[in-house]
Amino acid sequence: MESVAIIGAGQTRYGDFPNKGVKELFAEAYLEMLQSVDRGIDQQRIGAAFIGSLSSGSGFQLGQLAPLLMGHVGLPRVNAVRIENACGSGGYALFNAACAVASGKVDIAIAGGVEKMRDVSSSKGRYWLGVSGDTEFERLAGSTFAGIYALMAARYMHEYGLKREHLSMVAVKNHRNAVANPKAQFRKEITLEQAKKGVPVAYPFNVWDCSPTTDGAAVVLLCNAKIAREFTDKPVYLKGFGAASDYLAIHDRDSMTRLLATRKAAAEAYKQAGIGPKDIDFAEVHDCFTIAEILAYGDLGFAEEGKAQYLLEEGYTQIDGKLPVNASGGLKAKGHPIGATGCGMACEIFKQLRDEAKEPSRQIKNARYALSHNVGGSGGTAAVFIYQRGDA
Amino acid sequence: MESVAIIGAGQTRYGDFPNKGVKELFAEAYLEMLQSVDRGIDQQRIGAAFIGSLSSGSGFQLGQLAPLLMGHVGLPRVNAVRIENACGSGGYALFNAACAVASGKVDIAIAGGVEKMRDVSSSKGRYWLGVSGDTEFERLAGSTFAGIYALMAARYMHEYGLKREHLSMVAVKNHRNAVANPKAQFRKEITLEQAKKGVPVAYPFNVWDCSPTTDGAAVVLLCNAKIAREFTDKPVYLKGFGAASDYLAIHDRDSMTRLLATRKAAAEAYKQAGIGPKDIDFAEVHDCFTIAEILAYGDLGFAEEGKAQYLLEEGYTQIDGKLPVNASGGLKAKGHPIGATGCGMACEIFKQLRDEAKEPSRQIKNARYALSHNVGGSGGTAAVFIYQRGDA
Repeated sequence: MESVAIIGAGQTRYGDFPNKGVKELFAEAYLEMLQSVDRGIDQQRIGAAFIGSLSSGSGFQLGQLAPLLMGHVGLPRVNAVRIENACGSGGYALFNAACAVASGKVDIAIAGGVEKMRDVSSSKGRYWLGVSGDTEFERLAGSTFAGIYALMAARYMHEYGLKREHLSMVAVKNHRNAVANPKAQFRKEITLEQAKKGVPVAYPFNVWDCSPTTDGAAVVLLCNAKIAREFTDKPVYLKGFGAASDYLAIHDRDSMTRLLATRKAAAEAYKQAGIGPKDIDFAEVHDCFTIAEILAYGDLGFAEEGKAQYLLEEGYTQIDGKLPVNASGGLKAKGHPIGATGCGMACEIFKQLRDEAKEPSRQIKNARYALSHNVGGSGGTAAVFIYQRGDA
Repeated sequence: MESVAIIGAGQTRYGDFPNKGVKELFAEAYLEMLQSVDRGIDQQRIGAAFIGSLSSGSGFQLGQLAPLLMGHVGLPRVNAVRIENACGSGGYALFNAACAVASGKVDIAIAGGVEKMRDVSSSKGRYWLGVSGDTEFERLAGSTFAGIYALMAARYMHEYGLKREHLSMVAVKNHRNAVANPKAQFRKEITLEQAKKGVPVAYPFNVWDCSPTTDGAAVVLLCNAKIAREFTDKPVYLKGFGAASDYLAIHDRDSMTRLLATRKAAAEAYKQAGIGPKDIDFAEVHDCFTIAEILAYGDLGFAEEGKAQYLLEEGYTQIDGKLPVNASGGLKAKGHPIGATGCGMACEIFKQLRDEAKEPSRQIKNARYALSHNVGGSGGTAAVFIYQRGDA
């Protein structure tokens, strides 16, 4: 297996862009990616493009979105394909791009993602999210993802004494982190009191427990590690990558307080990287709802099951804690443009591991290993990646 | 790069199945695939599943279809992802599965595809096809794929003297081949006179020039060639695979009488396999419209540009000709369940190269190399595969 490096990354700001379509958003991220390659790159050397999107622009281009986007940025002939696993689409695009490079089939590949969620009516936006739950047993029965994650939160409270306040601590932390991230949708702190008293959504969630509706795109450039130094002295190595699934419908699963897909994907990524959870210096995890970050602490091995909430009490995952989580602001405050999210995490880690996060308050120092974690739907799919700083 | 073998393949009959959904169709193909593995396989060894689908059951499960299907066949935890490039989705699923095995990331993977096209109104069926053309410049302007391919046919007639009769010869040949294929949608011969005088669709096409609306599923089992003999004495080796794109909109392309995506994909596949067009003993090509098969002859290197029609006159691509093309009946008569089509071609080749096509009239004798060719939309994407008989 060939080793894989990341040599460029770019993304749009996440937010509400009624005047930009998927082509414009993708091109913006693609151009920032090109500019991030220290010594530049001849784009004709790009051998393949894997692009994650759930709704393909809320139905704008449901078939062959990937070649359309690559044509728009001037590479109409490159092997391009759309990869879809709902909110995990970006992570799976990265997984497939990594396999293509690791196989030696191509030396250089793009993993990207794009989503337009804000230019449709809220009912259509909800439709595009709802289609990722189990149609027969969840969507058509009226379940929403907020409702399903709320069940997980309620169960975690029941089994392990999680308090409403712990959920809010995730929101407060991630909103605070987003203030220093120029790419974030919500650059605004919230207080614990505010976070506890938002408009109710689904018990125990209020609006501050939910990630927003977001437009955005992200693009990562991968290459065979052998040639990475042609392009930069500061590559970031993709040391491990894993992906796994679970039943879509929560009633079919073994547990409501763990995501087995995450656990299996993480085990595979750790094994390939030859390291464990204790070696990770910081992580970007999938906090589509506040409980999701708490579940991730357990599922990724950062905390024992049922004790994840204590990491929040200790400040362990704060930006200045022992293991910063979601320094970008996370899905909660950076935003969640579905198909782009998994690649956006890789963009953040690329910047952090090259000491390019800029704002001193945001840059994580002395980090060697980072992890990203991207989930599809309510845990039907998950992809986990482990990155290593390359300039050491 | 690890070498890749195919050790199992299964598919549903193609046709009109109003009482079967995507789950039932996929399971039927999956089970036939399992039964085709000569010495059986412990399903838990399957490391990943790549599933092609455009409409995900005409919108039934637009997000996370792949893990839903794998859960339905009893493998809820396997890494599963949906791959989409319109009518090329199945071929791209095969491409991504091949990369995963070639990288060493997994030893055993599934490539599959499924589509339901017949349980929706014809307007919705047309919608699901139309979404794969360029939305801004083709779909919203009223173009259909029949219309776009008809333009190509008319241009080929103008430039190279193609006759209406040549188009019909493709239909007659493929309908005749389908008679002996128990999986085909239309097992019925048509005469040249009939084929020339069908109900008009878009000049020069009549209804016999167009592939049908089809439900169906196909599943292929790939493994690292090193372990293939654990499962069978008759593996089929995937010696080369290539994929490439082009502008979606036909007005942006360099030519209307070639598909550059096919040419680039084929060049890559031939190079990897270390053989050329002359070495191919038979092929399954993407004849969504009769002109598409004629274009494929040129694009795959079987004929010089502008002279493809003479292969038909000579009977060169008949089942008993020098290079049988679409022995299965092709998309034209076997049927075209969009996301399944590319994997269904691999199923046919798997059977042929193992001398299991059964009906003596259909089995191609003494074949060593075969090729399959799957196109997305009107040529926005294409994937080409080269197979080698493994029992020699």
